[in-house]
Amino acid sequence: MGAALIDGKAFAAGLRGRVADAVPAFAAAAGRAPGLAVVLVGEDPASAVYVRSKGRAVEEAGMAGFEHRLPADTTQADLLALVATLNADPAVDGILVQLPLPPQIAEDAVIAAIDPDKDVDGFHVVNAGRLATGQAGFVPCTPLGCLMLLQDRLGSLKGLEAVVIGRSNIVGKPMAAMLTQADCTVTIAHSRTRDLPGIVRRADIVVAAVGRAEMVRAEWIKPGATVIDVGINRIDAGAGKTKLVGDVAYSEVVDVAGAITPVPGGVGPMTIACLLRNTLVAACRRAGLAAPEGL
Amino acid sequence: MGAALIDGKAFAAGLRGRVADAVPAFAAAAGRAPGLAVVLVGEDPASAVYVRSKGRAVEEAGMAGFEHRLPADTTQADLLALVATLNADPAVDGILVQLPLPPQIAEDAVIAAIDPDKDVDGFHVVNAGRLATGQAGFVPCTPLGCLMLLQDRLGSLKGLEAVVIGRSNIVGKPMAAMLTQADCTVTIAHSRTRDLPGIVRRADIVVAAVGRAEMVRAEWIKPGATVIDVGINRIDAGAGKTKLVGDVAYSEVVDVAGAITPVPGGVGPMTIACLLRNTLVAACRRAGLAAPEGL
Repeated sequence: MGAALIDGKAFAAGLRGRVADAVPAFAAAAGRAPGLAVVLVGEDPASAVYVRSKGRAVEEAGMAGFEHRLPADTTQADLLALVATLNADPAVDGILVQLPLPPQIAEDAVIAAIDPDKDVDGFHVVNAGRLATGQAGFVPCTPLGCLMLLQDRLGSLKGLEAVVIGRSNIVGKPMAAMLTQADCTVTIAHSRTRDLPGIVRRADIVVAAVGRAEMVRAEWIKPGATVIDVGINRIDAGAGKTKLVGDVAYSEVVDVAGAITPVPGGVGPMTIACLLRNTLVAACRRAGLAAPEGL
Repeated sequence: MGAALIDGKAFAAGLRGRVADAVPAFAAAAGRAPGLAVVLVGEDPASAVYVRSKGRAVEEAGMAGFEHRLPADTTQADLLALVATLNADPAVDGILVQLPLPPQIAEDAVIAAIDPDKDVDGFHVVNAGRLATGQAGFVPCTPLGCLMLLQDRLGSLKGLEAVVIGRSNIVGKPMAAMLTQADCTVTIAHSRTRDLPGIVRRADIVVAAVGRAEMVRAEWIKPGATVIDVGINRIDAGAGKTKLVGDVAYSEVVDVAGAITPVPGGVGPMTIACLLRNTLVAACRRAGLAAPEGL
């Protein structure tokens, strides 16, 4: 048990606190609280849980939450009309449409309809392009949370070798872009990568975001490396029970790594904290105010 | 002299020929030739040479060229007004504003003003975002040319290890995104990379795009690797003369690599060929026609 534990839960609580602390100054300057609209279409139970957590977090941060629950048979046109209304609403700084959407609605079309300056999820093509070209925009909350944990743990990342396992638009690719911008030498590995263990073994920083339970083993890890585990996989725990594990075989990697995020309690809590952070930043930008330092 | 020569000049001529061959069918279906507008502001001699070459290539391909030469003291507002006119002109499929622009004009603002669907240079943030997220768009001509040369030489790139040296928005970053999409395992190296020789030595594919004359040496190259040299550097050749060299020390790397692009005659000629290709593709998309195969 050599590795230091990267306590994402504690860091996320701190970040949420810093966001909440900054809200009154924004409200005083702007004459209103930062506002986040969350749209849920249908009755997916996991989505409903996420939306509830987000609503609670928004309230705790002193922000204004606008929850829109639409029936599962909502048409794409109706959802796009709602997005247009939210784009035009001056009280709304951030718009989050909870994914997945029902099959009659094209997710791409809905994301494309969100004002990029209210796209606090960072999924809009304009925000992907801003990240790719080094312009200010919004980056997806999960890789942003990973970057914050890394910088909190390591300070400057300059010159470190990072391997990102997974090339999704939501985690792997933006993570690689952010690490490159932070002056890491970055490799993106994926399902077609040959000798994945050998490639991961080069890394000072490993970010695993593949969605395969405990795939990353101890012998893949360079001793002392910092390991960020984005995976959340539910597996059979015997006796009819299940448990959550990451993409990293925690119980063995903990003996080799220098520091590691647990699952749960690592990256997971960062996502909502970064959503609040992005919403505050969106609010400040829209109001022409400087975003608070240290977020 | 072991390495095969990757003859970009010949490949570019072939591509230009295939584009030219496809123009009559487009013109028959659309009732007009594909059109490229090229805008030159000021008298920069190198830019004037590029613009002339592009104009000649457009003409040779049977396309319609629209050249706009503006004085060096053109205001940003006047240039933006011209871009808006070209955006609205149905005869214009592609818009290229030759960079660099005079200091009174913000390049970012001009690029952002171009209709992304006419942005055949692939510099618009929306096209950077489309590339980053795997959507159809326009990718910058130079890395597109590199990819074509690699695929022509190697066939499938799946599982190959690629190292891109340089992280510019115009070459390095889009090149890395394209190679990732082609299923390579990609590392982006740059000025902050530690042990650059060791990292380059891992690569089956090396793309050098740093702008430092002959920086990449023979001992950096894995025997048999494919080396793409994007650099064009003018150096002192003694006796008051100069010569063009790449970022790769060609005379020594040629003994180690499996294949290599020369400078000049490698990547350089591909850029204009890919500009023509992008213009034809833009024209087909705007006309609702399928782009020809094999481009």
